[in-house]
Amino acid sequence: MSDNSFGRLFRVTTWGESHGPALGCVIDGAPPRIPLTEADIQHWMDQRKPGTSRFVTQRREPDAVKILSGVFEGQTTGTPISLLIENVDQRSKDYGEIMDKFRPGHADYTYWSKYGIRDYRGGGRSSARETAARVAAGAVARNVLNTLIGSAVQIRGALVQVGEKTIDPANWSWDSVTQNPFWCPDPKMAMEWEDYLDGIRKAGSSVGAVVELRASGIPAGLGEPIYGKLDADLAAAMMSINAVKGVEIGAGFAAARLSGEQNADEMRLKDGKAEFLSNQAGGILGGISSGQEIVVRFAVKPTSSILSPRATIDRFGHETDITTKGRHDPCVGIRAVPVGEAMLALVLADHLLRHRGQVGDFKSGFDAR
Amino acid sequence: MSDNSFGRLFRVTTWGESHGPALGCVIDGAPPRIPLTEADIQHWMDQRKPGTSRFVTQRREPDAVKILSGVFEGQTTGTPISLLIENVDQRSKDYGEIMDKFRPGHADYTYWSKYGIRDYRGGGRSSARETAARVAAGAVARNVLNTLIGSAVQIRGALVQVGEKTIDPANWSWDSVTQNPFWCPDPKMAMEWEDYLDGIRKAGSSVGAVVELRASGIPAGLGEPIYGKLDADLAAAMMSINAVKGVEIGAGFAAARLSGEQNADEMRLKDGKAEFLSNQAGGILGGISSGQEIVVRFAVKPTSSILSPRATIDRFGHETDITTKGRHDPCVGIRAVPVGEAMLALVLADHLLRHRGQVGDFKSGFDAR
Amino acid sequence: MSDNSFGRLFRVTTWGESHGPALGCVIDGAPPRIPLTEADIQHWMDQRKPGTSRFVTQRREPDAVKILSGVFEGQTTGTPISLLIENVDQRSKDYGEIMDKFRPGHADYTYWSKYGIRDYRGGGRSSARETAARVAAGAVARNVLNTLIGSAVQIRGALVQVGEKTIDPANWSWDSVTQNPFWCPDPKMAMEWEDYLDGIRKAGSSVGAVVELRASGIPAGLGEPIYGKLDADLAAAMMSINAVKGVEIGAGFAAARLSGEQNADEMRLKDGKAEFLSNQAGGILGGISSGQEIVVRFAVKPTSSILSPRATIDRFGHETDITTKGRHDPCVGIRAVPVGEAMLALVLADHLLRHRGQVGDFKSGFDAR
Amino acid sequence: MSDNSFGRLFRVTTWGESHGPALGCVIDGAPPRIPLTEADIQHWMDQRKPGTSRFVTQRREPDAVKILSGVFEGQTTGTPISLLIENVDQRSKDYGEIMDKFRPGHADYTYWSKYGIRDYRGGGRSSARETAARVAAGAVARNVLNTLIGSAVQIRGALVQVGEKTIDPANWSWDSVTQNPFWCPDPKMAMEWEDYLDGIRKAGSSVGAVVELRASGIPAGLGEPIYGKLDADLAAAMMSINAVKGVEIGAGFAAARLSGEQNADEMRLKDGKAEFLSNQAGGILGGISSGQEIVVRFAVKPTSSILSPRATIDRFGHETDITTKGRHDPCVGIRAVPVGEAMLALVLADHLLRHRGQVGDFKSGFDAR
Repeated sequence: MSDNSFGRLFRVTTWGESHGPALGCVIDGAPPRIPLTEADIQHWMDQRKPGTSRFVTQRREPDAVKILSGVFEGQTTGTPISLLIENVDQRSKDYGEIMDKFRPGHADYTYWSKYGIRDYRGGGRSSARETAARVAAGAVARNVLNTLIGSAVQIRGALVQVGEKTIDPANWSWDSVTQNPFWCPDPKMAMEWEDYLDGIRKAGSSVGAVVELRASGIPAGLGEPIYGKLDADLAAAMMSINAVKGVEIGAGFAAARLSGEQNADEMRLKDGKAEFLSNQAGGILGGISSGQEIVVRFAVKPTSSILSPRATIDRFGHETDITTKGRHDPCVGIRAVPVGEAMLALVLADHLLRHRGQVGDFKSGFDAR
Repeated sequence: MSDNSFGRLFRVTTWGESHGPALGCVIDGAPPRIPLTEADIQHWMDQRKPGTSRFVTQRREPDAVKILSGVFEGQTTGTPISLLIENVDQRSKDYGEIMDKFRPGHADYTYWSKYGIRDYRGGGRSSARETAARVAAGAVARNVLNTLIGSAVQIRGALVQVGEKTIDPANWSWDSVTQNPFWCPDPKMAMEWEDYLDGIRKAGSSVGAVVELRASGIPAGLGEPIYGKLDADLAAAMMSINAVKGVEIGAGFAAARLSGEQNADEMRLKDGKAEFLSNQAGGILGGISSGQEIVVRFAVKPTSSILSPRATIDRFGHETDITTKGRHDPCVGIRAVPVGEAMLALVLADHLLRHRGQVGDFKSGFDAR
Repeated sequence: MSDNSFGRLFRVTTWGESHGPALGCVIDGAPPRIPLTEADIQHWMDQRKPGTSRFVTQRREPDAVKILSGVFEGQTTGTPISLLIENVDQRSKDYGEIMDKFRPGHADYTYWSKYGIRDYRGGGRSSARETAARVAAGAVARNVLNTLIGSAVQIRGALVQVGEKTIDPANWSWDSVTQNPFWCPDPKMAMEWEDYLDGIRKAGSSVGAVVELRASGIPAGLGEPIYGKLDADLAAAMMSINAVKGVEIGAGFAAARLSGEQNADEMRLKDGKAEFLSNQAGGILGGISSGQEIVVRFAVKPTSSILSPRATIDRFGHETDITTKGRHDPCVGIRAVPVGEAMLALVLADHLLRHRGQVGDFKSGFDAR
Repeated sequence: MSDNSFGRLFRVTTWGESHGPALGCVIDGAPPRIPLTEADIQHWMDQRKPGTSRFVTQRREPDAVKILSGVFEGQTTGTPISLLIENVDQRSKDYGEIMDKFRPGHADYTYWSKYGIRDYRGGGRSSARETAARVAAGAVARNVLNTLIGSAVQIRGALVQVGEKTIDPANWSWDSVTQNPFWCPDPKMAMEWEDYLDGIRKAGSSVGAVVELRASGIPAGLGEPIYGKLDADLAAAMMSINAVKGVEIGAGFAAARLSGEQNADEMRLKDGKAEFLSNQAGGILGGISSGQEIVVRFAVKPTSSILSPRATIDRFGHETDITTKGRHDPCVGIRAVPVGEAMLALVLADHLLRHRGQVGDFKSGFDAR
């Protein structure tokens, strides 16, 4: 099979190649009567759009979204929503080298091993260009969450590490995130990254990064006990983003170092509602949301396209070298922030509907029933 | 909905509660004519079985597996394989306290928020007892892999970190793994862990851990481009195991610190076949296996059941304290090793069939077509 | 793949062979807090049970159902419900002939062509014995429907044709259905069938039948526009029952003879609610329930096991003859009635949850919003 | 949820409304290296296209298909194939009447009951215009079947009944099917239908029909035992087509009248291969193809849009009348023939891949292993 769909009840199917005429997605299962306009979606597209700073790919794509179906008089109708994004800047060039050679760190070799054919132009289906469709779908998911749960829902992301340089959580400011080209919540570190990434960019090198996502205003009860765990679906969602190599929830890998006393979040009441005294769990217990803020982090590997020549082989079975020219990001982690947010929104919207299907309209917390 | 099934073509549905009469699973989609006996399964069950050392829960369960369907004269028939494991040692006791109070770090509060009812006996469905069914299903997956790919397939796991104590990779010995009660590949560290965990056990405390899994002999080409990525499915698989808070592939979170030069594995030929000069990718590129060893790690949080009293609330909306008595593991990470192996086998068997469905019987590598 | 599961949100996975130790099913996705006991299920099992009259197979099976999981203190918990039915009367006998020869009209040849192995004992997985698990699952679906919609829901079936003998709809009496061994709603025809089937039974022959199912009390709005149409799912459900060769909704094949004027059901108001003046549609328009009675019919072929010798081949490639001995039904359509009812209940329960997931808790009719 | 996808491994997701800017589909899971061009698809589109005779709707749509992704240098790549069909002739008109009133026999009332909103323009999503996407996807499925099985595969359909006028099977000629505007295989009946339908058309009335489909060259072994039965999936496929009210396989409803002796197809050998002496089964036994010709029939109800005024209600709860003006078909069954063929191709392509996933590349028949 080939799984280009994500989600169960709020289900997104994406399609399109980096250098094809267009890309897009079909969203099936959106509830009816959710307000939705192209402008709602475009707002989020513009955040992921390439070419916005010297730290991201210089490909110039307007990423203008068209709604082709499923919306009538400004509201969803419950039928599939087809979104289309035309590719504009597929720079024509000689593909001779990447046509035959496998770029190290890219999916060239594995696609070719699997399918015996590959659209090598700009990476074809394996290009991060596919994530434009995720961001578009994520915008619809946000409207679903805001309409069904309420405007208290906030889904936000930030870059917390670039190469060896990690932010100081004590400096965290959500305002800062929108005031630098890195989604950096630590204003001081943002300045440091600027110099650091300029150096990497000029050297034709690249570096990895860590993204942190948070969702607040999510009621307790979303998620399912065993294989439909909210955290399992989040792990799949984030790992499915290009170049991601690790995912963690709450304390994550640091939990391995903790004792049971440090790790298990104690509970008290506040205004008659359950309140946790810490959030090592990252808002998820036993695969189900607890009502706390949901905290997810993922690691992005460095861009594989770099200017140094690298040893590789070609599809005829010869050893050779390759140097990747063209437009690329010194740190693909930067543009992964809005993509991660979109995936988080998609998982939550899907689980909201899944919960409603099995359990019905929900109330949150210990006084739920 | 409620997703107690795992996999698409090799599909396992598990059922059962910690203190119910039995638990088990149904495996749908196993290829026909795969050799399979109860003894094949029991071999792996015995490795996960509780009560084998003082470092794991003292519950006494034989975990004897019965095959109820799908096997005829020692071979699978292509019809569903139903496996049954009876619960024997559901120690009768007074559930008064956990019936009403939510244990911190457990799924008590979230199950109750979601469903408005919970089988509190031993954690009900959220108990790690469910993982017995995973290990049983994993044994069937191993037979599928060995029959369809060949006996070169090896799926193995080890514990590489307990609390703050991490193994030295230079000491790695697969033989060591079977020679201590911790699946520790570093014989020196195994001795250190013994003292360390005795201290934790006696203090009524607990500690987290990190498990590393490896699969070798897996051909290039397994996995799917976007949401069916092999690593995305592995991330979901591992995150779905009780108490897991993080998953990484290959270099994982460390990749964030690397440069593109360090990270992208170069390629050469050896005996006419593709060979990678390093394995930062952990055997997966663009979501598809490269033919290299597949490397997955996951972090397990410390057991939440500890002897110190913890602040919590009850289902009537009162603040209270709770102390968890009974049989528990000082480090649940230990028993997670065979469970992780089983999940890795399940993902690989599923992707083997998925690949075969779309592409047909496969050859591996750059000379595939 | 191999699809032994039915339904999307209310999902049943069945397993087991005719002559294995047991059969059963796992129901995943049942809402929590639905009242459920073994007796609730047994009530419906007893209706399908073999050996109740001379017109059905003489195999003696108590078909006693055990609930192994998912129910706590008389209520569903939202976790998977595992149901087990032990096989008791697997009459030991010499399987020599059916081991090697393909019985005409049976699945022997096709299973063997597909899998290269088959459990030939009593038909293995292709035996109608599998339908016991459907009836058990259907009982749970009925409780879901009754709890979520209300006790006005009625799901009933009747046999309306046996061979060439069709009931007179003018004589229809639901009371009659329970007063003869044929589920016949026409008391006069029931008597006629008795003689007719005695003749067929004594001749070692068999005959086909038509079953009609009705569901009343179902709100408007269940079903989905395109491939998840309520009638499409009903068609699959009924066609999946052993020996079924045709399915129709409402006027069904007779609609081909009608004019648009005759076929399109007109609407009026009654007590402020929509009322249809006829029901050619069988309660479904555009794949979605209209609030009218849902009417489904399906055709069952004659039992293929008959006493006359039949020409066939064996698995070694020789022409031969076969006579099927043993316990069989002169008209398998009789026992298909409770199975059809169960499938109807399963489809409706699934669509109720699917609707709730996408649209939320529902009201019915033109004043729905 | 909302299921606008069809198939498991060869999976088609359709989208689009009758009067929106475009409609289309995404095909996920097509094998790689299948030859495919826009012309291959257009060939089949032209057969379903409206406006080709006075017996079908006069809407003028070129139905030109664009391939937006998944094909590279004339071959499929294994990634999703996005197909786009622009709507051209959405005749602008006053929707005043159908905006508020529910047309009898249409899905107006049920969509509105379900979603509380509907795109009433031309029927929105419930319009048969959606079937254009099915025919496009079916063309891809045909290429898959021809490439993987071979050119012996033939998937054909014919109209065998219009209103009360049924063809004489003795006159069956496949050549005839392409020589009249009805897909009628009986040249004599074709002439009769011409007069008959002219009368119905002029009266502003409509009439139902029966379509028969046949697939030859299909190997034994496709289909799955229980809920994934080939006939169950065919039943769902056909019932999902607009206006279909009944489906049958092989002898179908007529099987209810047969004896076991008449019904069970005997077997002999021919040139060392299994041969059936009759085909009451319609090529499917136990849900699995037998290698015989697959025979499916479905009944189409008369067009609900007719010129006589009909009693109905409006969405404000008033009784009223409605007369449907505009472009409509006197017999929608005519244009259902290529749609039925497409659905048959889709089911077979899907089951071919499903079989290959579980069992591997296949051989057919009793000497399969």
